Amino acid sequence: MSAPLRFGLIGTGRIGQVHATNIAGSPDAVLAWICDPFIEGAQSTSERLGGRVTTDSAEVFASGDVDAVVVASPTPTHIDLIAAAIDAGIPVLCEKPIDLDIARVERLRDKASTSGVPIALGFNRRFDPHFAELRRRVVAGEIGELEQLSIISRDPTPPPADYIPLSGGIFRDMTIHDFDMARFFVPEIVAVTAHGSNLFSEGIKEGGDYDTAVVTLRGSRGELISITNSRHSAYGYDQRLEAFGSKGLLQVGNVGETLVTRWGSDEVEARAPYLDFFLQRYADAYRDELAAFIELVRGGERRSPGFDDGRAALILADAATASAASGDTVTVDLG
Amino acid sequence: MSAPLRFGLIGTGRIGQVHATNIAGSPDAVLAWICDPFIEGAQSTSERLGGRVTTDSAEVFASGDVDAVVVASPTPTHIDLIAAAIDAGIPVLCEKPIDLDIARVERLRDKASTSGVPIALGFNRRFDPHFAELRRRVVAGEIGELEQLSIISRDPTPPPADYIPLSGGIFRDMTIHDFDMARFFVPEIVAVTAHGSNLFSEGIKEGGDYDTAVVTLRGSRGELISITNSRHSAYGYDQRLEAFGSKGLLQVGNVGETLVTRWGSDEVEARAPYLDFFLQRYADAYRDELAAFIELVRGGERRSPGFDDGRAALILADAATASAASGDTVTVDLG
Amino acid sequence: MSAPLRFGLIGTGRIGQVHATNIAGSPDAVLAWICDPFIEGAQSTSERLGGRVTTDSAEVFASGDVDAVVVASPTPTHIDLIAAAIDAGIPVLCEKPIDLDIARVERLRDKASTSGVPIALGFNRRFDPHFAELRRRVVAGEIGELEQLSIISRDPTPPPADYIPLSGGIFRDMTIHDFDMARFFVPEIVAVTAHGSNLFSEGIKEGGDYDTAVVTLRGSRGELISITNSRHSAYGYDQRLEAFGSKGLLQVGNVGETLVTRWGSDEVEARAPYLDFFLQRYADAYRDELAAFIELVRGGERRSPGFDDGRAALILADAATASAASGDTVTVDLG
Amino acid sequence: MSAPLRFGLIGTGRIGQVHATNIAGSPDAVLAWICDPFIEGAQSTSERLGGRVTTDSAEVFASGDVDAVVVASPTPTHIDLIAAAIDAGIPVLCEKPIDLDIARVERLRDKASTSGVPIALGFNRRFDPHFAELRRRVVAGEIGELEQLSIISRDPTPPPADYIPLSGGIFRDMTIHDFDMARFFVPEIVAVTAHGSNLFSEGIKEGGDYDTAVVTLRGSRGELISITNSRHSAYGYDQRLEAFGSKGLLQVGNVGETLVTRWGSDEVEARAPYLDFFLQRYADAYRDELAAFIELVRGGERRSPGFDDGRAALILADAATASAASGDTVTVDLG
Repeated sequence: MSAPLRFGLIGTGRIGQVHATNIAGSPDAVLAWICDPFIEGAQSTSERLGGRVTTDSAEVFASGDVDAVVVASPTPTHIDLIAAAIDAGIPVLCEKPIDLDIARVERLRDKASTSGVPIALGFNRRFDPHFAELRRRVVAGEIGELEQLSIISRDPTPPPADYIPLSGGIFRDMTIHDFDMARFFVPEIVAVTAHGSNLFSEGIKEGGDYDTAVVTLRGSRGELISITNSRHSAYGYDQRLEAFGSKGLLQVGNVGETLVTRWGSDEVEARAPYLDFFLQRYADAYRDELAAFIELVRGGERRSPGFDDGRAALILADAATASAASGDTVTVDLG
Repeated sequence: MSAPLRFGLIGTGRIGQVHATNIAGSPDAVLAWICDPFIEGAQSTSERLGGRVTTDSAEVFASGDVDAVVVASPTPTHIDLIAAAIDAGIPVLCEKPIDLDIARVERLRDKASTSGVPIALGFNRRFDPHFAELRRRVVAGEIGELEQLSIISRDPTPPPADYIPLSGGIFRDMTIHDFDMARFFVPEIVAVTAHGSNLFSEGIKEGGDYDTAVVTLRGSRGELISITNSRHSAYGYDQRLEAFGSKGLLQVGNVGETLVTRWGSDEVEARAPYLDFFLQRYADAYRDELAAFIELVRGGERRSPGFDDGRAALILADAATASAASGDTVTVDLG
Repeated sequence: MSAPLRFGLIGTGRIGQVHATNIAGSPDAVLAWICDPFIEGAQSTSERLGGRVTTDSAEVFASGDVDAVVVASPTPTHIDLIAAAIDAGIPVLCEKPIDLDIARVERLRDKASTSGVPIALGFNRRFDPHFAELRRRVVAGEIGELEQLSIISRDPTPPPADYIPLSGGIFRDMTIHDFDMARFFVPEIVAVTAHGSNLFSEGIKEGGDYDTAVVTLRGSRGELISITNSRHSAYGYDQRLEAFGSKGLLQVGNVGETLVTRWGSDEVEARAPYLDFFLQRYADAYRDELAAFIELVRGGERRSPGFDDGRAALILADAATASAASGDTVTVDLG
Repeated sequence: MSAPLRFGLIGTGRIGQVHATNIAGSPDAVLAWICDPFIEGAQSTSERLGGRVTTDSAEVFASGDVDAVVVASPTPTHIDLIAAAIDAGIPVLCEKPIDLDIARVERLRDKASTSGVPIALGFNRRFDPHFAELRRRVVAGEIGELEQLSIISRDPTPPPADYIPLSGGIFRDMTIHDFDMARFFVPEIVAVTAHGSNLFSEGIKEGGDYDTAVVTLRGSRGELISITNSRHSAYGYDQRLEAFGSKGLLQVGNVGETLVTRWGSDEVEARAPYLDFFLQRYADAYRDELAAFIELVRGGERRSPGFDDGRAALILADAATASAASGDTVTVDLG
């Protein structure tokens, strides 16, 4: 059995905490370094789970005792940290998105692809056991040729109003997960048509963004993919997937906390609302995302989405943003 | 195509109305005579659906223009009306039970079996499309050998308190349907163990009956059958069936009015309560019961339960009554 | 109680037979006249259900003993038959579509709206008990403001190849039902974006049509409506509806023949495939469609979609056809 | 925060491994000692998870560095190990059953109740999140007064034939879990009626045991509880619970690995078979069972079933064994 990988974690916010816990809980990983410019975050994480702390990510890369890094810092820092990891020859798992500016992504692309350093992007939903099993069965041919894919993705509640202007817009911030999910099934997307609407949130409207969206993607074989988004959902986190093909359909519905159903005089077969928080809904996915990254670092088969998947999702988000503004279909070339 | 059968209907209460409507609506039947000692019931039915009226059932049997009768009059009249139908050589569909007194049933048995006159008993649930399909698949061997059968049967609300002393008790009045359903799958029952309880209805208790019951039947091959009864159900008519065998299980759940489900902030996947009334729940069953009887009269394959099925259900109900009182298992011989 | 309406039926094909049976089975209607240029169709229907026969629809309109007509003849005859009904002052229930040519529809519009003769269009799905109940609950405010609507509509098998060139294309032939369903919830549609694809049928491709489609509609308040279509479905007729609003979601899934589920060693909770034929799936809807039309003729509240609903659906179909060809969103004015 | 409890584990078989893993994975526990007469089992567990090893349980009790013990050794050793724990003043979590001989259990009862040493019995199903949530809602009054309880419990496959004679019979070996589940809801059981049958396993029959059973329990308020057992189940582990009361019903169905459903040309809405192994089905329950025991040891509220719960389940199992043999209801006094 190999020695556990020594991880450096950069960023100790909400997602950083998830990664810290999963690293500490994995038999194949140890939390060696924790970096955050707010040193208190790094320190409290270290107290809970161990690891040396620093405010300077360069110290992590230069330490000599880190086998892999997880980047969970704010989006604008991602691209430089990926570059630094490549320069240091240290495999990196970076949260999505790579960046909000495709030009900056394109500038790093060659280096990323030629360096040989394993890069994984944090599209955690690929690792959700339900979605992953559905895809395995599609790949196994269970529904014949895939013809249509439906992705429903609604957040329980909108983000704070002051986050909206920094978010890059709903397509780059929220739909980007769905773009990657679409590409999990249909990697080659050729056209994007998007519709946005303002139906319930004044704050989002004032921030210049949509609170509701519908996107249609076309795959290179003519597959049609529908994405339905909303920034709110009264009944909890709405995360559904449906793959339709010549031989049938595979479906994943929403996840509840327990299987208890109630039959009363008002309604029957009623369940408690769905899991309300993405960290709860995707807890298993984050764990397997880390496991897949560790396999990748150790030279195993790549299950992790990579730099080009992050780039593709951003291209689709940009195209959706343009399409929603113009009303026209935007063709894309992900090659 | 044969001429429609000319029906005489005896009894125009709630169930009589169901049969009247189904006879009038069938292309294979006409409502020729309607009999009720309360002539107003017969007359109003006739105004709605046609047919001659009388207060005297003998007139129906003697009329010479009746091909079949449906007996929907009160239970104490059933056995004499079946006998009269046999004497007149007229096929009869009689509502359950044949009688509450097994001795009277036994006295008619020979005549019923040797007469050659088609007799059908109104165990309508055999004709419910869901239960009938489940049985077809059991008979087709889909679950291998049948090992266990679970019947859940709960009424929405108890009958009026003054009906209880006339009902013959829960086992003869309510469970009798479940005994027949059990025999639909396992005709040869050899032992009965029953438990009654008084949990919610003072009126039923004062009437000397149980409001809640559980019965276990044993088939001749050792099959174990569980019946669960209650005289009330907050969520509507609870009528479920589950057949378990060596290769799997077949299940029928409850029937709702529509497929609409609601996902709200309090609960999700909630449906409106189940159909609340047996005439609504079993509307299709009553229609097919009549169709099966018409086939029988016309010499087709027998799908209808017969006199001996009515007798067997009553024997089981008597055994259950005795078992619930004594706490002991009662063996039965239905041969 | 009113006398039954005397119906003239024009057209005795597949849909004509449905209407004939429902008219004959309704206590509020009689089948007085049956018209078909293929007189054998009219005659065999008359033998089964009664009514005088003719090859000439003018004879029906002139007969003086017809209170209402149902038009179930081929699409190109619809508009002239509606006009004839208006001229004769006879209420008409006409199968969809009014015509494939919007110009012809527009020419009849004034006459249709000013004549005062009740006109109903055969958008039967509005009368499906599941969809109708879902809408009642949306209208009652159960999900708050409607924000998104998802309509999935897949046919079990494609039509014959030689029908394709006559069909007007998938949007005018198949999606037209979904356009009307969209307008059942959001009458004022302002923009249409459509995508077609050829994924499985060479015959449809050669006929110049799509076998697969996705359409997005925008309502005047910004509501986003998604329609998903396919000309085939391995698991039976796929007809689903989902309404999403600020307070939750209401959903209708597919309809099976019975509630039986199977739990086996390979799979569990498996049901038989869905109803495979639209006449079976929508049998209740056709009956209520007729009942609503009879109410309309008798001066009751209008529940039936009318001429302008038929016109609106065709405008949306035309817009979808144009949008699918150009890739651009097409704005529409249904006023 | 308290120091982690130092655990001694006695027995390193299948269940012992579960406890070992959970102890090692808990932030509130450390695996201090591992005892097994087959020292290899103890050693390999220690290599994996740490802890000192011994073949002699007395060494564990005398070590002075153990705060609690888990007894996962064969049933005949349980009672002496509980007694030893009491003597040593060390809290003990013991796997079910306490013993197969009620006389031996009764002899320890006084000592167990007066010692003040926390004793917990391994009725893990009380800690299943689904069943526990159902009970919380029953206790909260959601269904009004509890009137009926249905427990379905079927194992995927029978135990090896040579285990049967040692098992104590199906009621003491398998149904004992269901007896405890019944008492989780209705602690005071007053009567037991049981039925056993031999339907599929020659080995079980030759071992003098039943492969199929149905049990009815009566609570002191007249509640009726139905237990349905089978030693095989083609579709996986069948573990269902249904509580019925005056205001409605709460239900828990079976647990699958993922939510994927398949809609094909043969069947629709089909899921993969249920979890097939009790360690997988009840993995969460074993973890929470340990957590509850740790709370108990630390002086928190008792959530763990205790010695008297183990005794009560055995009394019910004995009564069921007698009832199945005699056909009579057996009254019990659990006081």
